[in-house]
Amino acid sequence: MTATAPHPMDLSHHYSYTTKNRLASFVKSYYKYYQIPGLANFAGGLPHQTYFPYDTLEANIARPDRLKPISAGDSRSERLIVPKQSQTTDVQRRIDLTTALQYGTAEGYPALLSFLRQFTRDHLHPNVPYAGGPEIILSCGNTDGFSKSIELLTNIWNPDRDWIRQREGVLCEQFAYMNAIQTVKPRGLNVVGVAMDEQGMCAFGEGGLEDVLENWDFRRGRRPHVMYTVTMGQNPTGGVLQIERKKEIYALCQKYDVIIVEDEPYWNLQFPSAYEMEAQARGLSVPSPRNYNAEGKSSGYPFLDALAPSYLSIDTEGRVIRLDTFSKSIAPGSRLGWITAQPAIIERLTRITECSTQQPSGFVQSIVAEMLMGKQDGETKARFYKLQDSPGWQMDGWVHWLEGLREGYEKRMQSMCTILEDNKFFLSGSADHAQDWEVVDRAQMFEFIWPKAGMFTWIEVYFEAHPLVSQYSPQKLSSAFWIHLTQKPALCLIGPGSMFAASPESIELAYRYFRLSFAPMNADDVAHFTQRLVEGIRSFWQRKNLDGLEDADTLDMRMLQLSPEANFLGTGC
Amino acid sequence: MTATAPHPMDLSHHYSYTTKNRLASFVKSYYKYYQIPGLANFAGGLPHQTYFPYDTLEANIARPDRLKPISAGDSRSERLIVPKQSQTTDVQRRIDLTTALQYGTAEGYPALLSFLRQFTRDHLHPNVPYAGGPEIILSCGNTDGFSKSIELLTNIWNPDRDWIRQREGVLCEQFAYMNAIQTVKPRGLNVVGVAMDEQGMCAFGEGGLEDVLENWDFRRGRRPHVMYTVTMGQNPTGGVLQIERKKEIYALCQKYDVIIVEDEPYWNLQFPSAYEMEAQARGLSVPSPRNYNAEGKSSGYPFLDALAPSYLSIDTEGRVIRLDTFSKSIAPGSRLGWITAQPAIIERLTRITECSTQQPSGFVQSIVAEMLMGKQDGETKARFYKLQDSPGWQMDGWVHWLEGLREGYEKRMQSMCTILEDNKFFLSGSADHAQDWEVVDRAQMFEFIWPKAGMFTWIEVYFEAHPLVSQYSPQKLSSAFWIHLTQKPALCLIGPGSMFAASPESIELAYRYFRLSFAPMNADDVAHFTQRLVEGIRSFWQRKNLDGLEDADTLDMRMLQLSPEANFLGTGC
Repeated sequence: MTATAPHPMDLSHHYSYTTKNRLASFVKSYYKYYQIPGLANFAGGLPHQTYFPYDTLEANIARPDRLKPISAGDSRSERLIVPKQSQTTDVQRRIDLTTALQYGTAEGYPALLSFLRQFTRDHLHPNVPYAGGPEIILSCGNTDGFSKSIELLTNIWNPDRDWIRQREGVLCEQFAYMNAIQTVKPRGLNVVGVAMDEQGMCAFGEGGLEDVLENWDFRRGRRPHVMYTVTMGQNPTGGVLQIERKKEIYALCQKYDVIIVEDEPYWNLQFPSAYEMEAQARGLSVPSPRNYNAEGKSSGYPFLDALAPSYLSIDTEGRVIRLDTFSKSIAPGSRLGWITAQPAIIERLTRITECSTQQPSGFVQSIVAEMLMGKQDGETKARFYKLQDSPGWQMDGWVHWLEGLREGYEKRMQSMCTILEDNKFFLSGSADHAQDWEVVDRAQMFEFIWPKAGMFTWIEVYFEAHPLVSQYSPQKLSSAFWIHLTQKPALCLIGPGSMFAASPESIELAYRYFRLSFAPMNADDVAHFTQRLVEGIRSFWQRKNLDGLEDADTLDMRMLQLSPEANFLGTGC
Repeated sequence: MTATAPHPMDLSHHYSYTTKNRLASFVKSYYKYYQIPGLANFAGGLPHQTYFPYDTLEANIARPDRLKPISAGDSRSERLIVPKQSQTTDVQRRIDLTTALQYGTAEGYPALLSFLRQFTRDHLHPNVPYAGGPEIILSCGNTDGFSKSIELLTNIWNPDRDWIRQREGVLCEQFAYMNAIQTVKPRGLNVVGVAMDEQGMCAFGEGGLEDVLENWDFRRGRRPHVMYTVTMGQNPTGGVLQIERKKEIYALCQKYDVIIVEDEPYWNLQFPSAYEMEAQARGLSVPSPRNYNAEGKSSGYPFLDALAPSYLSIDTEGRVIRLDTFSKSIAPGSRLGWITAQPAIIERLTRITECSTQQPSGFVQSIVAEMLMGKQDGETKARFYKLQDSPGWQMDGWVHWLEGLREGYEKRMQSMCTILEDNKFFLSGSADHAQDWEVVDRAQMFEFIWPKAGMFTWIEVYFEAHPLVSQYSPQKLSSAFWIHLTQKPALCLIGPGSMFAASPESIELAYRYFRLSFAPMNADDVAHFTQRLVEGIRSFWQRKNLDGLEDADTLDMRMLQLSPEANFLGTGC
């Protein structure tokens, strides 16, 4: 982000037809008139603020050390008040209902925008290489952010109307977050899965990014020019793409002129212990901890410096659009997030926002701003744990909260994976006494990757090793397996891999995979739920037939396997 | 809404290519599994609610009779609390942060959805004629609702790629809310202005709807199949379309198969006194008050029965999509509203919502639900003014609040229009002594319509009657007029008509028109601001030249007049 660095590239040839047509708002022409003292403003259609029925907005909130106490017993609630009218005249510090509940600008509520802009530029991505650094705009969460990015970058393709050569495409991991794919598919775009390994997307090798782009079959349409990717706690596989791999992929994106849309709801939930525990359990060497900003500007926080960085940190050309959300760091129902990219792209997203969501709700913007920034009426800012009088979390508190969250999910991950690790094998003749190692047969039932970030463990089930494989196809066994687990005594609901299969190739493989979330359950429940799950898997291996595991009246797994668009776990899975 | 009424028509031939492609969520297949007692749910990617940092959300709110007191002095604030966890198990009554801040369904937060559905079906539109009646889905306000409606109904047209015969079109009033037009234009659609009178859109006559549709020039593309309209407090003209006219227009929409998107942010701000005061001032006959539901089911409230009804009330075929918002009834920053239409259309809008906004923020949904419905933990509902313990506004209180709002804006309208009415004429030789009626010349400077609803007065300025018309074109005078008003001593900012000119024909006329908003100013300021405005108009009539009224450095009115997309008063005007 030095002044002498090259400016980001002009990437406007990627904009969709609609995006190119959007006109900038002329509102700035009016600004000088708004400054005239005593002006009678008959021009704006703004309701009068005395007609807003809310006089204050208040909340009891956690102190930022609730999840990771700094000193014992100091984890009280704090009281937070958004007043009707603030005394502050500085718009970047003003947090009140008179402004938050009025019409605002599409970029976002100035106070919250300024906090997040600082967080983004100075702490989260301190080393964006292009001149001037990135800009941000608030979104209504990452589904909204991705929808706007797709609107920005892609043209709808209709086979009855358009030539096949006009069909655009979106690259993604072979197994991907299905709600994102659902945003793309109805537009008629090619969805192109790229091979993955335990980190995430592969740059090279069969089905890797280079293979896909270099050997693109133009009979399918244009070579894809947009990539959708989750690189930190990939959904569903839990992988974290290391910076070395990111550099390889970025270079390919430069070569083939691809824009990267990076969707990172789990970026702060990276689990160093997963590397250690997996290595220990499997006799591998443990990678040493890293400081990713060691050669550049520090984030200011050891916690952030140690997290695998965004594509933005190597984005010399400005071809990265990063989506951030409060869904996992505050709450999904916030419907609040932000988009980070080079200024010209943020400008186009602002135009899109003006004609769709306008901006996130002022209720959430003001109450989150107040929590993060505290009372802004004249007091000096202070580190969160020093002051008593509702100073807000401040940057330190916010980062501390993020670290505490990581700890909560990391413990759940450890509970689940320890039990999975110990129960991968079916021990014939001694299934009820797993401690008895004098067995004849030792068949591996499943394998999994310790998730390096996020909320999910991705398991692969070896149906070809099931005793009934001579009577039933592996696909049929998979469907029966899923139903078996929902029944007593297992009583477990798990996510079938077909939900995440982004391309025809992955649909073929999908029957082998399942996603296990450790996030929604109480920390204390993870171990015994997982125990029940592995016992359920073991009892499935003991079945002599599949009677009672086909219920045509309910979920038809075969149908779902044929339908990659299936999104049956709600809007936020 | 009787059971024997015909079902709404299948209008799926109007859906866009993308809309047709959207797949229904498979989540319902899972519902039966969610019901299994003791199920370990590994399937959903939901964060754990103990990690939401908000413990309560609270507010001080107005009592619903603050604006229109029922008994003197009884206009205190009320205290409202959204708890972390409600005791209620009934999801339609549950209002708490555990559910409101979690992922939810695209239709909206169940408690708020159920209140609004009842309000919509039983009170706002008690007489929708098709079987089963309409459904609703929550939106992030009407800009979002319209954006989704356009996504639902129209295909993008790109001249480099598509045939002209494929170009779709949107009908609207000749002068229209520009932000809506901005949503449509970048998609390459024809924007087709329909002639207006003091009520709003004309059905018949030159440039009226029949003329436009019957004589459609197919060299411009397909005959428009979507109408965007504001019928109650039209923006910018302030007209209210009466039910007789609506029946004529609806019949034409049936004949030519047009879907009506009705955007009504000002529906409750209808001003009966405007008819009376206008008639009195101009010697016209006063229309008698009406009960629009007299022949059908009553809304339950005299206030609602007396308001001009929606197109939904005559929508036998289900071709009306109605957009409602809390922007003017609670606050613009809410970014909260709802869409009402036949169930099949709401189903498609649900699919669009799942892949874009997901749902409005849970912060605003829960705090508005709590205000409207009150504490739902076990107490019986009661009319708002009977109970002391935070019972919420309830339906009665909500309707009372809407009526009180009307009163507030109606008074502003009366203040403004009384002064405008008295100052339409320029009295030569006695401009400084308007009470002196012994004048030689009496030139009309402007004319206006008393707004029958909404927030705006639309004035037409007679530049051809200006003394300088022989030296300057009317367009030039218009531009100078606008700048003159921004200068001392007038100091008034008014909205130029060109901002609202939706079609080439209206752009030609636009220089004559200006929009005056009486909403954003204090009630006490309206009269003396309007006085300053009319004095400013008068002093413009006295000018001997236009020196100092051209500032190329600032707003270029000529440019704006050529640019119908100009939207220079922010996102919410």
